[in-house]
Amino acid sequence: MAVERYDVVGVGNAIVDVIAHVEDGFITDHELSKGAMTLIDAERAVGLYASMPPAIEASGGSAANTMAGIASFGGAAAYVGKVRQDQLGEVFRHDLRAAGVTYEQALASEGPPTARCLILVTPDAERTMNTCLGISNLLEPDDVDERLVAAGRVVYCEGYLWDVESAKAAIRKAMTVAKGAGAKVALTLSDTFCVDRHRAEFLQLVEHDVDIVFANEAEICSLYETTDLDEALRRVRGHAEVACVTRSAAGSVVLTADEVIEVPAWTAGPVVDTTGAGDLYAAGFLYGYTTGKDLFSAGWYGSIAAGECISHTGPRPQRSLAELFAEVPAPVR
Amino acid sequence: MAVERYDVVGVGNAIVDVIAHVEDGFITDHELSKGAMTLIDAERAVGLYASMPPAIEASGGSAANTMAGIASFGGAAAYVGKVRQDQLGEVFRHDLRAAGVTYEQALASEGPPTARCLILVTPDAERTMNTCLGISNLLEPDDVDERLVAAGRVVYCEGYLWDVESAKAAIRKAMTVAKGAGAKVALTLSDTFCVDRHRAEFLQLVEHDVDIVFANEAEICSLYETTDLDEALRRVRGHAEVACVTRSAAGSVVLTADEVIEVPAWTAGPVVDTTGAGDLYAAGFLYGYTTGKDLFSAGWYGSIAAGECISHTGPRPQRSLAELFAEVPAPVR
Repeated sequence: MAVERYDVVGVGNAIVDVIAHVEDGFITDHELSKGAMTLIDAERAVGLYASMPPAIEASGGSAANTMAGIASFGGAAAYVGKVRQDQLGEVFRHDLRAAGVTYEQALASEGPPTARCLILVTPDAERTMNTCLGISNLLEPDDVDERLVAAGRVVYCEGYLWDVESAKAAIRKAMTVAKGAGAKVALTLSDTFCVDRHRAEFLQLVEHDVDIVFANEAEICSLYETTDLDEALRRVRGHAEVACVTRSAAGSVVLTADEVIEVPAWTAGPVVDTTGAGDLYAAGFLYGYTTGKDLFSAGWYGSIAAGECISHTGPRPQRSLAELFAEVPAPVR
Repeated sequence: MAVERYDVVGVGNAIVDVIAHVEDGFITDHELSKGAMTLIDAERAVGLYASMPPAIEASGGSAANTMAGIASFGGAAAYVGKVRQDQLGEVFRHDLRAAGVTYEQALASEGPPTARCLILVTPDAERTMNTCLGISNLLEPDDVDERLVAAGRVVYCEGYLWDVESAKAAIRKAMTVAKGAGAKVALTLSDTFCVDRHRAEFLQLVEHDVDIVFANEAEICSLYETTDLDEALRRVRGHAEVACVTRSAAGSVVLTADEVIEVPAWTAGPVVDTTGAGDLYAAGFLYGYTTGKDLFSAGWYGSIAAGECISHTGPRPQRSLAELFAEVPAPVR
């Protein structure tokens, strides 16, 4: 193994993104749920793909994007997620390893193909995601290498995985191993519809199992079934040790029992494609957190990473985040 | 079939590009031939890919890029080229059809995988291509649908295909069918090393079989084994009916027996990646030519298409070339 300890070990759905830019009419014509992640079956994927404009392929997957971001800052990251031994599986593995992330899992020699997410980006830079989970959805406890997970300071899990029983069991195993090893457990709520599907379990997790929770405003409000953001923020402060709530152009707020810290957003230019923005915010925050920075500074790493991500098509950094961070003046507090 | 007649039918190596941005050191460290297209075998491809940074995948293939460009202007284009029934083959077929190009060839159910081109783009925006031809290289005369080829006003062939005997026979068949149907035959010389490998045959083709030849300065000089561009231009004027010689930032020159027409270049902003520039120049020129424009105007369509192409990563138009053309002021002659 490349290093003995990891700043963060991520567990998630391993996915290759298929990204096309479309007009808003495409979203309505195909009855897509704008801005959300919708699960689709293989048949629907074939039909939707056939109707899409020419696309590009880029490795994605929420937690994998986050690990790539951490590595881009210079952090030590490892990943657990399942791809098939097929062309897209090889693309996924290559891109993650080339980003500097430890990813030792063997490509599965049988089963459904590697997961694809058909992403439509509208002129407002919003992304609408349609995921055909393929083999990623067959992640199971045996796929979770206990030694790897125990080597992480933080174990970071996707809420998306809660959609499938075996994957949920895999995450629970990872969380248990992490706790036993004295690691922190982090969870992203992933998507408002995902929160809707699993609210009771997510509440349990946030109250009892999770040390660091990531959510955007809509997701945290959905978790507590309120339209009052302040109410949602107040409640999450009593639960997780640290909560990071992202607010798009308004930046983020980092909350603990004692503090509420507002962090400004940062952009590198026009916003082109918001795919991966939340994943990269988490990357920056976790890089700062695991390298001992204060919470404001950790949030600022998140702002830089998210700002780079939304300046181009594709969910992972296209330049060194460590170099970018060194170039951007620190914000006034 | 979508339309009964095509402005252009392209024949070429059907390839998916794997594109990464690298520093110049990568090119020298891996002993790559900067700016050229080098054929590599599957083993070399695995090794080179493993050493590449994270990449994106985008459909490519020289003649396929040209057909996508013609369709983007609103022209009727069809394509002949071979992919395997695999994930990258489906990507290639989708992207070409979604661009509006007629591509009816069945995905091959056996044989090597779909071709990949590992492309390294250096900070000067130059692309260095390393092609693993896979099944594209097994194009043979039976793959050339005579009815389709006979329906084109122009049949456009890649010099790249000359690297393989069966593909060469396929091209010769396409040229013969085109001549019989009264269509024009166009050829791109593709690459200086490619010209080097096939100079005698290319000279024969240009003198006897080809009506319209596309080349850059280095390729046309290589064809006539001279370092004197004027000498090369003088000689090609006596051969092909029309010769289009591209000159990067200096634009292009269109030559016939009677005329030498200089056409300015056009750019949409900073040059990011020159992959596909020549292919898109040919797209614009052929669109103008087949829609009855004068040669200067046809060249200008080429300049617009090439200028759009080099403004982003990836070898095909990322916006409608018809719309772009309408927005750009006509050049002063």
